[in-house]
Amino acid sequence: MNDAPDTAPLELKEACIRAAREVIAEQGVEALSLRDVARRLGVSHQAPYKHYPSRDHLLAEVMRRCYASFAEFLDARPLTDAAEADLGSLGWAYLQHAHQHPLEYRLMFGTPWPEAAEHPALVQAAVHAFNRLREALARLRGPGTGAAQIDQDALFIWASLHGLASAMHSTLMDKLQLAPGVEAGAQAHLMKRLSDALRADTPGRH
Amino acid sequence: MNDAPDTAPLELKEACIRAAREVIAEQGVEALSLRDVARRLGVSHQAPYKHYPSRDHLLAEVMRRCYASFAEFLDARPLTDAAEADLGSLGWAYLQHAHQHPLEYRLMFGTPWPEAAEHPALVQAAVHAFNRLREALARLRGPGTGAAQIDQDALFIWASLHGLASAMHSTLMDKLQLAPGVEAGAQAHLMKRLSDALRADTPGRH
Repeated sequence: MNDAPDTAPLELKEACIRAAREVIAEQGVEALSLRDVARRLGVSHQAPYKHYPSRDHLLAEVMRRCYASFAEFLDARPLTDAAEADLGSLGWAYLQHAHQHPLEYRLMFGTPWPEAAEHPALVQAAVHAFNRLREALARLRGPGTGAAQIDQDALFIWASLHGLASAMHSTLMDKLQLAPGVEAGAQAHLMKRLSDALRADTPGRH
Repeated sequence: MNDAPDTAPLELKEACIRAAREVIAEQGVEALSLRDVARRLGVSHQAPYKHYPSRDHLLAEVMRRCYASFAEFLDARPLTDAAEADLGSLGWAYLQHAHQHPLEYRLMFGTPWPEAAEHPALVQAAVHAFNRLREALARLRGPGTGAAQIDQDALFIWASLHGLASAMHSTLMDKLQLAPGVEAGAQAHLMKRLSDALRADTPGRH
C-alpha cells in the first residue's frame, strides 16, 4: 500500500464504482466490501470511506447507476404515437437490455437492496421504467382509466418480462429440453401473448 | 470439537442438510461451505466429506430436495378433468408454494446451479413441474398439437408465474406505490391474464 498512487478525490470516487462492479462480476454481490475495493485500487483501507460511509452506500450508488443507464436505454427507443406499438417497443427494449446486461439485470432485479440504499435518487431511478410502462398503458386504455386498472396490468406485464429475462439466464432453462426454436423465439412469443392478453380485455369487464 | 457427539452416519448425512439450509437462510447460498456446516454440527472438518464429496454436492442435494418437495406439492393439488381449470390450479399451486417457501423458491429458481449439481436425479426433480405444465397444456390444446407449440406456451406461462413470484419478494415492489388492492390482487389478475392470453389463440394462427 506504500506505493499507492496519489489518486484525486473524484477519480477515487469513480474508481470505487469500477472496482465494486469488478468484485460483483467476479464473486457476486455478497462478496463486496470496502476493504476489498481498497485492496484492488491499491489505496489505504480508509480511503473509500471518504466517499462512501459504508459498503451498502457504495452498492447503492452502483445500483443507482444501473437503473439510470437502464432508464436512458428505455427512453432512447424509437417513439411512436401508436399506443400498442409503443407498449411493444417498451417491452422489447426491456428484454433487449436484460439480455445485453445480465450483471446489471441481476443487480437491479435479482438482489435485495441494501438498507442504506433507501435514498430518493435510487428509488426514483428504479421506478422510472415502471412509470414508463404505466404511461404507455394509460395511453392504450385511454383517459378516465383508473390507477388500479393501469397498475394491475403494469404489474402483470412487468412480471412476465422479468420472468422471461430471469429464466433466460437460469440453469434450469438448459434442462427443459425445449422443442427446437422455442428458446430462440421465446421473446417474440411472450410479446405476442402479452398483446393477446391485453386485447382480450373489454371495457367494464373489471 | 473434542466433545462432539458420536453422530451416526445417516444422522450426520441428514444433519448436514439441515445445517446447510440454516447457513443458506442466514447468510445466503454463497456463504455455504462444508467447513461451516461441520462447525455448526460440532463435528470434525472432515466428517461431512464422508457423505458429500464437495460443498457443491451438498448444495445439489439440498436443491434436489427442494424440487422434490415442490413437485409433491404440485401433484397434491385437487385434480380435475377440465383442462383449463387444471392449468389454473397448477398456476395457483406454483404461486402459493413460492409465497409460502421463499427460501426454497430462491434456491430453485433464483440461483445458478453448482457444477456438481448436474446429476440426473436433480434434473429430473427440477423438470417435473415444467412437465406437468406441458401435460396440462397438451390436454387444453388437444391431440395433434406440436411439441413446439406446447413448449412456447409452457415457457410463457412459467415465465409469467416466475416473474410474479420473484417480484413479490423484491425490494422494488415496495417502491412502486401501487394503487390500493393491486398487490393483494396481483396473483388473481395474472392468472386471469394468462387465461385471456391462451383463449385468444385460435387454431392455425401459429
